[in-house]
Amino acid sequence: MFTGNGKGKTSAALGGVVRALGHGLRVHIVYFMKGEYPYGEQPVLEKLENVSFERFGFTDFCDPDNVTEEEKEQAHRALSAARQAMSSGKYDLVVLDEVNVASSWQLIDVQDVVGMIKDKPDRVELILTGRGADPRVIELADLVTEMRKLKHPYDRGILSRKGFDF
Amino acid sequence: MFTGNGKGKTSAALGGVVRALGHGLRVHIVYFMKGEYPYGEQPVLEKLENVSFERFGFTDFCDPDNVTEEEKEQAHRALSAARQAMSSGKYDLVVLDEVNVASSWQLIDVQDVVGMIKDKPDRVELILTGRGADPRVIELADLVTEMRKLKHPYDRGILSRKGFDF
Repeated sequence: MFTGNGKGKTSAALGGVVRALGHGLRVHIVYFMKGEYPYGEQPVLEKLENVSFERFGFTDFCDPDNVTEEEKEQAHRALSAARQAMSSGKYDLVVLDEVNVASSWQLIDVQDVVGMIKDKPDRVELILTGRGADPRVIELADLVTEMRKLKHPYDRGILSRKGFDF
Repeated sequence: MFTGNGKGKTSAALGGVVRALGHGLRVHIVYFMKGEYPYGEQPVLEKLENVSFERFGFTDFCDPDNVTEEEKEQAHRALSAARQAMSSGKYDLVVLDEVNVASSWQLIDVQDVVGMIKDKPDRVELILTGRGADPRVIELADLVTEMRKLKHPYDRGILSRKGFDF
């Protein structure tokens, strides 16, 4: 699991996907909060074999203090899709991108994430990303890296750059 | 730059590479300390366009207290290759994988890394990885994420798993 406030969580998951593919494993990625945002990896993933993905959520970032029913519905659909992929026997690795944010903002119940991890078949690996990982989820994870921001160009007023930040 | 003792530094760089490729950028990766180790990403990178890589260093991990002349020579060659890629005009992004380890173990002089970053053309991005980043390199970087290990399966005696850890 990759959590924390620093950059590199989704990137690290994506790097893990590339390695898994290199070893012939089959991968499914569920984006919880990306909507139609043009993440740079998608055209590359589309060219590769043995990897598929589904996107849920919205283009505009949620306001955690004002989540809508539609946002909750999207997050629930994402979690169902991830659970289905995990149980399907079709994948060796399932990525739940930004699931931690979805649960910390209470779009989904963290207990449903915990339940999913507990039901994980032994031969399937999960990678969860997103800041604000719940201690109950950390408890169940084998590997947890916290990405800590030491420096970020936004701090100096630099906006995000296509190809490097998304 | 991705540094720290947690897992995900090379993976995050690799995820950054995939995103850059998705935006049509041209990428070169220099592995400083990987030797012939069968990193999972390489067959996938070989299938993709606009990305190339070079590997230096050895299969067996160095002993930082007993570095050999040959190890130093390999690290110097890696740094030259990275500098050449950076200055060639052929790449938009150059990754220096494990360069921080090479400089903290004094296989190369950190001043040569600093000099390279100062000579970087504006239109080229660099991603540096490896634990033990020198403060002089951190000072020059726009973005620095420290990967902190919160939990690692090795702590429980689980060995590395093909497709997930390498």
